[in-house]
Amino acid sequence: MATRFMSMRNLQFTMHELIGKQKADLYKANDKQAEKATDMILKAAFEFAKDAMHPIFEEMDRQPPELDAGVVKVHPDVRTIMQTLGEDGWIAAPFSEKWGGYDMPATTFNAINFIFAAANYSASVYSNLTIGAARLIYTFGSEMLKETYLPPMLEGKWQGTMALTEPDAGSSLADIKTMATPLDDGSYLISGEKIFISAGDHNGVDNVVHLMLAKIINSPAGVKGISLFVVPKLRPDENGNLIKNDVIVNQIFHKMGYKGAPITGLTLGENKNCKGYLVGEVNKGLFHMFQMMNGARLDVGASATAIATAAYHCALDYTKARKQGRKFSDKNAKDPVSIIEHADVKRMLLFQRSVCEGSLALNMQCGLYEELIHLLDKDQKIKFELLLDILIPVAKSFPSEMSIFSTSQSLQCFGGYGYCDDFPVEQHFRDTRIHPIHEGTTAIQGMDLLGRKIRMKDGKALSLLTEEIKITISNANNYPEFRIDAKDLTDAMEMVLSTTQTLARMGQEKGEEAYLANATVYLEMFGFFVIGWVWLNQAIAAREGLSNDRLKKADRLFYQGKIKVHEYYFANELPKIVSLSQVLTRNPPVTMSVEAEHFTN
Amino acid sequence: MATRFMSMRNLQFTMHELIGKQKADLYKANDKQAEKATDMILKAAFEFAKDAMHPIFEEMDRQPPELDAGVVKVHPDVRTIMQTLGEDGWIAAPFSEKWGGYDMPATTFNAINFIFAAANYSASVYSNLTIGAARLIYTFGSEMLKETYLPPMLEGKWQGTMALTEPDAGSSLADIKTMATPLDDGSYLISGEKIFISAGDHNGVDNVVHLMLAKIINSPAGVKGISLFVVPKLRPDENGNLIKNDVIVNQIFHKMGYKGAPITGLTLGENKNCKGYLVGEVNKGLFHMFQMMNGARLDVGASATAIATAAYHCALDYTKARKQGRKFSDKNAKDPVSIIEHADVKRMLLFQRSVCEGSLALNMQCGLYEELIHLLDKDQKIKFELLLDILIPVAKSFPSEMSIFSTSQSLQCFGGYGYCDDFPVEQHFRDTRIHPIHEGTTAIQGMDLLGRKIRMKDGKALSLLTEEIKITISNANNYPEFRIDAKDLTDAMEMVLSTTQTLARMGQEKGEEAYLANATVYLEMFGFFVIGWVWLNQAIAAREGLSNDRLKKADRLFYQGKIKVHEYYFANELPKIVSLSQVLTRNPPVTMSVEAEHFTN
Repeated sequence: MATRFMSMRNLQFTMHELIGKQKADLYKANDKQAEKATDMILKAAFEFAKDAMHPIFEEMDRQPPELDAGVVKVHPDVRTIMQTLGEDGWIAAPFSEKWGGYDMPATTFNAINFIFAAANYSASVYSNLTIGAARLIYTFGSEMLKETYLPPMLEGKWQGTMALTEPDAGSSLADIKTMATPLDDGSYLISGEKIFISAGDHNGVDNVVHLMLAKIINSPAGVKGISLFVVPKLRPDENGNLIKNDVIVNQIFHKMGYKGAPITGLTLGENKNCKGYLVGEVNKGLFHMFQMMNGARLDVGASATAIATAAYHCALDYTKARKQGRKFSDKNAKDPVSIIEHADVKRMLLFQRSVCEGSLALNMQCGLYEELIHLLDKDQKIKFELLLDILIPVAKSFPSEMSIFSTSQSLQCFGGYGYCDDFPVEQHFRDTRIHPIHEGTTAIQGMDLLGRKIRMKDGKALSLLTEEIKITISNANNYPEFRIDAKDLTDAMEMVLSTTQTLARMGQEKGEEAYLANATVYLEMFGFFVIGWVWLNQAIAAREGLSNDRLKKADRLFYQGKIKVHEYYFANELPKIVSLSQVLTRNPPVTMSVEAEHFTN
Repeated sequence: MATRFMSMRNLQFTMHELIGKQKADLYKANDKQAEKATDMILKAAFEFAKDAMHPIFEEMDRQPPELDAGVVKVHPDVRTIMQTLGEDGWIAAPFSEKWGGYDMPATTFNAINFIFAAANYSASVYSNLTIGAARLIYTFGSEMLKETYLPPMLEGKWQGTMALTEPDAGSSLADIKTMATPLDDGSYLISGEKIFISAGDHNGVDNVVHLMLAKIINSPAGVKGISLFVVPKLRPDENGNLIKNDVIVNQIFHKMGYKGAPITGLTLGENKNCKGYLVGEVNKGLFHMFQMMNGARLDVGASATAIATAAYHCALDYTKARKQGRKFSDKNAKDPVSIIEHADVKRMLLFQRSVCEGSLALNMQCGLYEELIHLLDKDQKIKFELLLDILIPVAKSFPSEMSIFSTSQSLQCFGGYGYCDDFPVEQHFRDTRIHPIHEGTTAIQGMDLLGRKIRMKDGKALSLLTEEIKITISNANNYPEFRIDAKDLTDAMEMVLSTTQTLARMGQEKGEEAYLANATVYLEMFGFFVIGWVWLNQAIAAREGLSNDRLKKADRLFYQGKIKVHEYYFANELPKIVSLSQVLTRNPPVTMSVEAEHFTN
């Protein structure tokens, strides 16, 4: 199998030359020592990913988890991986020193997620889910809950999960039916059913801790009556011994890809002996959960980017090695050329890079804003909170949707071989298809962007974003070679803004349904625009890299290649905004007048 | 599993109201009896597909073929299906009466392919490949070859294959290495290796007949030295007994989808005892093969359309049954609505229908031209030959590429369930990914369209096509409600034509490589344009259907729904031409200046 699954050079470019420079400008910090320390951490993550995770990438797909007499059996290396990630501090790293961490910066955390997911997405989710669940306890839990649950979770001994979805409540969490009845000891009796719970149970850990949404009896209807609970598989009794907590795995789902991680259905309280412990405030469960949702959505974006990146590297290796056909300029050559010499293969590779490196840059941009929110004081941080808010739906959905097309093009580079399991691209294509679904479907992201984020604080987030983009445009105008791109991005921005206004008017005239009818299309347009912005930033950073007189050949080629991918993006992808804007401004949307009964035959 | 996999109503609309009417106008034939006979045949095909093929759709995926001691074991029903299709005349139907057929018209043949592939794509390829191979023998073979091979093939007892690809020669057939050495008895000794041979061997038949490309020793280099042979698995000896012909299955490929049909690697003549029989003329093998290629490419388009259609019907059933969320106009309703009521779900369904029904209409349009070529005399038929030639790359690639997106949207309609094998959509998504690869990749289709078809006979095919499209535009202008659409299609046509001219100039200035650099993008633009044409034709036919005063409610809803899908296509898909035209006219293409060494990191 392919040994290369990512480019450390590109990751470092993104973190240091693109994002680190912005951080230095904004936070007046330019810490070469911190940069070097980060590189050592990334290197260590890469080595672990390469040695422990990547070698079992295909095995975990071929031998998916099995439910055997109530026990979910996963690949034996899952236990070793969780143990090592716990013992070596990777799981605790984002937490405070008290819990064994060092408040790892968000960009470093995102980079590690990216590395692990590129090596083996399924293997990367166990620890990642644990971190997400632990963060909820860490942020909203009582001291008692923290003392009980955080140490074994951060040591990689206990698995954490997010248990939201139910058979009749996926996108619509208002309809969950899992109930919580208060008990005298301050805990709650839980009963209900959950489905699609990732890593919801397995034999690679000693216990599983579900961060679960449920309704306390007699609480208000809808989302205002949802509370958050810790519901462990094994709960500590009064003597601290772990006893069964009446959480039963009733099924594991057989998925098309992402097979290495078990997705489970859970029955809670079948024997009326399932206890849950309230996290945070009563009826504030969804609110608490959503404060963590930004992180979860960035993780999905990073994972989709990582899978597409790994598939791209497979395709790159293959197109360099595989010889077939001749160039048009030398049609009668005796020997065939490497297929990377063919224009259409170059186009496919450029497309893949434009998606992968654009998505990574956006993910890191969001990571930077997250860091600044924690570093800056209240007055300053509000700006970055709003920027993060408006970018999250794009950072989740653009990589998720585009990774389908990107991995599909990786597969296409192999011809018939790409469709077979001789190479791992077909697995990447299957694995990545989950991303537009989990942590809020693409449709949900579109409604979040157009319905909430664009309008919040009278459009403040959007105007802050356009200010940032204008800075990039102004920087680009300093380089004669980027002036046309600056103009193209300006035009794109004006088109996005005027489309937004047209939609607002349509909403005023025809109501919310008309305003949001094409929210997914709006999200797509907005995504192509935002990725255009991060590409122009990358091109400028590469141009600055090239200005170094004593550049090594490999670095020169890297920067030149980066600018070529930027050129490709502005030539072939950014123009998609024009058509999408036409779609959006067509009034009224067709979906307003088509009825279910029109779909009878 | 879903029992509905296609709409007979829509197939009949496409065949009779859309295409049949054109045929009546062109060929002065308006034969209601023939229409009824066709319907009976389609009904019979549908019943067989529903009862014999569809029930094993998932089984054939879960229990893929196995290579066991040199024998490829397939699902036991394959033998029954082949036998029935043979005995009941389905395989012989497209051939002349002498061979048990009735010269079945191309549109009927395409419709049956569509029905079978929608029910179970893998199960449909066995007979289809046999027909393709038999057609080569029928058209170019000697009487002796016909007498020997056609009867058992058309009876479903012997499998036919197309054996082109080799380990180092897929898209580039000039480089095949399989050799043919003349023997005294007029046959040839074959030696070499073939890969990716669909149904290349299996235990559902008594013999396998490969229509194989090979080079006769000392023949010219490249494509001009390729000949076509019949190479059977078992060959008749002088007494007519079948003996082994030294054709060995060396592997079967493990594919991501389309698992029910074995794709094999073959070793030929390992023991110097593999005989082949020349079909047609020496060194004209590729030429002969390509005369059959139009049919094979239409089959792929029909199959991709069929898979997307089956996935759409799964999604349709689910979105009607599944209740979740509320409408914006009734947010506090107690009960959730069927998800088909949500605007974004309607959008996804409209997209799927626009792809499926647009692709089917184009497939049938091509079928009509094929029929006319056979019906008309030489002077008249040249027009339809050229129309068919220019449409084939679109009819192959548009459904193939778009079925990835369409099945992906079907899957998305299910949320998390779509990613699991509880429903068959994930299989459709995997199955259909083969289509942009086999029978000429999408890149090959792009070069065929822009490099050959657009330029042939001084652009005659393109001007004939625009004449046809102008007739549609003129018809649309007769209906006030379609005047804007007529204008939109006119604008699209002008954009396509001016883009074509810009590319021609670019080619004159910068050479063939620049002209063809974005041929795949050109194909995509051309596809959206051509499908716009067939959609406007469908809308007009539906409008005519609505004009009937005594319409049943189901028919009225069908026609109204059809016009809604047309509206969707013109609002949301046709505008993509604008962006693609911008991409194509950017000069010079980025792929001209990016080098392999720019892809180092």
